[in-house]
Amino acid sequence: MNDSLAQSLTCIECGAAHPLTYRLECERCRGLLELRYDVSRLQKDGPALLTGSGLWRYAPVLPISDPAHRLTLGEGGTPLLDCPRLAAELGVRRLLLKFDGPNPTGTVKDRSSATAVAAALRFGYRATSVVSSGNAGSSIAAYSARAGLPSLIFAYERASAPKLLHMAATTANLIIYKGVYDDLITIWDRLVEERLFFDCGASRNAYKQEGKKTLAYEIAEQTGWAPPDVVVAPVAVGETFIATARGFREMHEAGWIARAPLMVAAQATRANAVARAFRDGTAITPLKIGYTVAEGLAAGDPGKKGAWVLRLLREGKGLVGDAEDDEILATQRRLARVEGIWAGPTGVATLAVLAGLLAQKRLDPGQTFCAIISETGLKTEAEPPSRTGVAFDYDTLRRLVTERLA
Amino acid sequence: MNDSLAQSLTCIECGAAHPLTYRLECERCRGLLELRYDVSRLQKDGPALLTGSGLWRYAPVLPISDPAHRLTLGEGGTPLLDCPRLAAELGVRRLLLKFDGPNPTGTVKDRSSATAVAAALRFGYRATSVVSSGNAGSSIAAYSARAGLPSLIFAYERASAPKLLHMAATTANLIIYKGVYDDLITIWDRLVEERLFFDCGASRNAYKQEGKKTLAYEIAEQTGWAPPDVVVAPVAVGETFIATARGFREMHEAGWIARAPLMVAAQATRANAVARAFRDGTAITPLKIGYTVAEGLAAGDPGKKGAWVLRLLREGKGLVGDAEDDEILATQRRLARVEGIWAGPTGVATLAVLAGLLAQKRLDPGQTFCAIISETGLKTEAEPPSRTGVAFDYDTLRRLVTERLA
Repeated sequence: MNDSLAQSLTCIECGAAHPLTYRLECERCRGLLELRYDVSRLQKDGPALLTGSGLWRYAPVLPISDPAHRLTLGEGGTPLLDCPRLAAELGVRRLLLKFDGPNPTGTVKDRSSATAVAAALRFGYRATSVVSSGNAGSSIAAYSARAGLPSLIFAYERASAPKLLHMAATTANLIIYKGVYDDLITIWDRLVEERLFFDCGASRNAYKQEGKKTLAYEIAEQTGWAPPDVVVAPVAVGETFIATARGFREMHEAGWIARAPLMVAAQATRANAVARAFRDGTAITPLKIGYTVAEGLAAGDPGKKGAWVLRLLREGKGLVGDAEDDEILATQRRLARVEGIWAGPTGVATLAVLAGLLAQKRLDPGQTFCAIISETGLKTEAEPPSRTGVAFDYDTLRRLVTERLA
Repeated sequence: MNDSLAQSLTCIECGAAHPLTYRLECERCRGLLELRYDVSRLQKDGPALLTGSGLWRYAPVLPISDPAHRLTLGEGGTPLLDCPRLAAELGVRRLLLKFDGPNPTGTVKDRSSATAVAAALRFGYRATSVVSSGNAGSSIAAYSARAGLPSLIFAYERASAPKLLHMAATTANLIIYKGVYDDLITIWDRLVEERLFFDCGASRNAYKQEGKKTLAYEIAEQTGWAPPDVVVAPVAVGETFIATARGFREMHEAGWIARAPLMVAAQATRANAVARAFRDGTAITPLKIGYTVAEGLAAGDPGKKGAWVLRLLREGKGLVGDAEDDEILATQRRLARVEGIWAGPTGVATLAVLAGLLAQKRLDPGQTFCAIISETGLKTEAEPPSRTGVAFDYDTLRRLVTERLA
């Protein structure tokens, strides 16, 4: 019951199939690996394979075979919110938001942290590590703590205060790094090769990435296996985008859905290496980037996964867009006021990009859209409103209330 | 399908049954009202009455009959986490944490906000209001925005920065009040009587309170209708405690569970009016209180609901405990490090109280325990760790990693 149907780690470049060990690239060609499953079983049994709730409901399409390794903090099962008021403002037929803020650490990262740390247990590792702009760090630290494993968390010096607090609370080994993500990752990757810790990074580990595939499965199941026409996913290194696109492709191959949605990749303009390459019809040129309010999208060099995103976009006739920081912040405010959803800048970049593509008439507004909102707003660092309070008596309170509600 | 089985608003003092209108107290005796349901239908149909997911799965035992009023941001359906490592540390047989951080605004308040704002729609109100220490404010504002209703949010001047930011994002009418909750609530209540807005406060509205009853239903369903022996719920005004206790009682009357758990009320020592009265065997004496890190528990005068909590405790042979601020903060750190769960001080007060009662040998450690963890840690305001970063090369990075993992 609820067995994993994973069969191989298959190279996305040369197609070589490897057994299910801890392996980060193809032995033959150094290509990235993806997990492949028993599609005939998926076809035969259909969604009746799924049992339970949350992320592990989708255990048949995840690579963790031993239930004892399936650790959880209650990730997944997040709401898919129909937003008619915002849809009307954007002039589209229907808008659904897959709001991943209500995950245990407040972000989509919990999906991949669950499968990453589960894989660390599966392969007998005694420690984990990740280089993070903030969200991945607190998530990997939390899941490692839950598993009883020490974690080494490298955090970006400009991470927001709530993110730093969260990381410091959940790991005994928080190390603040100077400089940009892309530089540290290069030397950190060498320690991964030496197997000093389990790789909880986003750039190569197929087991980690796989948890995010549940986004696609949940969107499909929550729409009665009739997913929206268009799904907008964020792209930093590309993990969420790739996993979501693969999930829909897998369900389509298995006959669970009639067609896979068109995928739109969303980037911050200040970190838009994939968007540029797509527009120019070229390969990716790594960018030296600075700060963007969409902290989780601050990757200038998406590496091999960036190339994978490009390929998926070109094969699937997808689109890509980017949004400026001011557009992202305006979208954050708008979403809170119009629908009551408080999401972070990283989280709303998809919605900002969707609004931009609609304004440029690059998408048909008669379609149904889904944007993945990848993080809660509670990790946002900004100046709070003034705390200068007013003392009321009955008359002043009554006057204020009637004025405000007039 | 999924009809509400609510039948009356019944006075908890004199037993008078009123029709399901907007009414905050008994016409006859001014007693508090509670919702009563068609128990024979609950008995006859059993849990098969429940359909769908999240809070509205429990619509048969909620008072909103029109599905069009059942607004949602995806609240409810939060994880019940088995915590064997922490259970071992506390020396108990089994410890479950009902972690309500993964709600849309990060707290248990979303359960009552959903039914409060749904009731505002049901009764045709055009605006909502609440006086809040922070969590209720952002939650009521978010649900009001979702419903398209303006909200007037009165927030405590010492609310944490993330709470203030959240409230300012979700309402156009955030008013910071000077002084304590208890004083403002007295004059605000007079405006409630004038029906200037829908009462989204915790002190009297039976429709609002009802949403929190789903905590009990979820705990029961997640344990296969065999709930834990002991459930620890926080008490400020008493809404969460009362709703949870009522939920278990209702399920017991309906035969869904064999017995209701023993209820333990948890307070902050700095706001422990209920705990004092219980210990002294007296009625509640309102306290003048100052600041406690458990911001959401900072009520010195729990009013009529406090008396209701006392009655439930005495009838049910329950217990009450309180925890000092330093114990609460230590519990917050411990929960993050041992189980990876990052909850706020208000949220972990139950666990701190449970640990205290166990240490005092006032509970049998051979039982199974459940503590309600009512809020995420992401709203915590504290000094973040130093942002002073280190620049690494391969050798310095390798040395650090091997040292830390030695």
